[in-house]
Amino acid sequence: MKDKFMQAAIDEARAGRKEGGIPIGSALRRGDELVASGHNKRVQEGNPILHGEMDCLNNAGRQRTYRDTVLYTTLMPCYMCAGTIVQFKIPKVVVGEAQTFGESLEFLQSHGVEVEILNLPECVEMMQEFIEAEPTLWNEDIMEL
Amino acid sequence: MKDKFMQAAIDEARAGRKEGGIPIGSALRRGDELVASGHNKRVQEGNPILHGEMDCLNNAGRQRTYRDTVLYTTLMPCYMCAGTIVQFKIPKVVVGEAQTFGESLEFLQSHGVEVEILNLPECVEMMQEFIEAEPTLWNEDIMEL
Repeated sequence: MKDKFMQAAIDEARAGRKEGGIPIGSALRRGDELVASGHNKRVQEGNPILHGEMDCLNNAGRQRTYRDTVLYTTLMPCYMCAGTIVQFKIPKVVVGEAQTFGESLEFLQSHGVEVEILNLPECVEMMQEFIEAEPTLWNEDIMEL
Repeated sequence: MKDKFMQAAIDEARAGRKEGGIPIGSALRRGDELVASGHNKRVQEGNPILHGEMDCLNNAGRQRTYRDTVLYTTLMPCYMCAGTIVQFKIPKVVVGEAQTFGESLEFLQSHGVEVEILNLPECVEMMQEFIEAEPTLWNEDIMEL
């Protein structure tokens, strides 16, 4: 079920698309608090490491611990973001959709990360619209050029 | 053997320590060209995702491909940086030392990344000096607080 944290991630993704960027957004939750949110900024900042999840963690700044947090993302994390989740010891990830992209699921689970996949049609549609409009940009982002 | 690219990574690490930061540096090589270098900026920019390797890739900007590159780093990559190497399809990593930190070796190798560990005493000493002087900061960076 979509909660306000996933809605914040989706809002970030849509904001990114409006800026001409890649529509993937993320939010970091601690209890009922939204710590930070962010979206992919490859285009906007010419920065290949600022995927949605990374921009969110960048925006959250230095945290003493992430063990009490949940990371929300509109799309299944890539290996960069999955490695970050494992490294930061974030115990749970809530994913909007894993249909468009999903290779890190086993890696996350094998490191004890709980992964909840919501299968939200609006997240799938957002990616499909983008990939049809900007196939080269999408392939650059997943390093398939 | 230490070459000019590893020297660039070490120079970055030492610059980071002088700034009051964590002495881990990185360099990205394409053929005989130094594409970019960088160092950990957790302290300097209050940014938990800017490990040495990530700062280097940030400084390199958008690259069409990384399949023809080699990443140098003074210390064995953490899972964030290792996941990034796998995601970016960087085929080879040259590591200054893997004694202080080294848990991602198997992950990298299982994804086909060649890992060359130089075991440089100057890299080990640089980390030991730092960890003795700033144990809390080091534990924050490896998420062991």
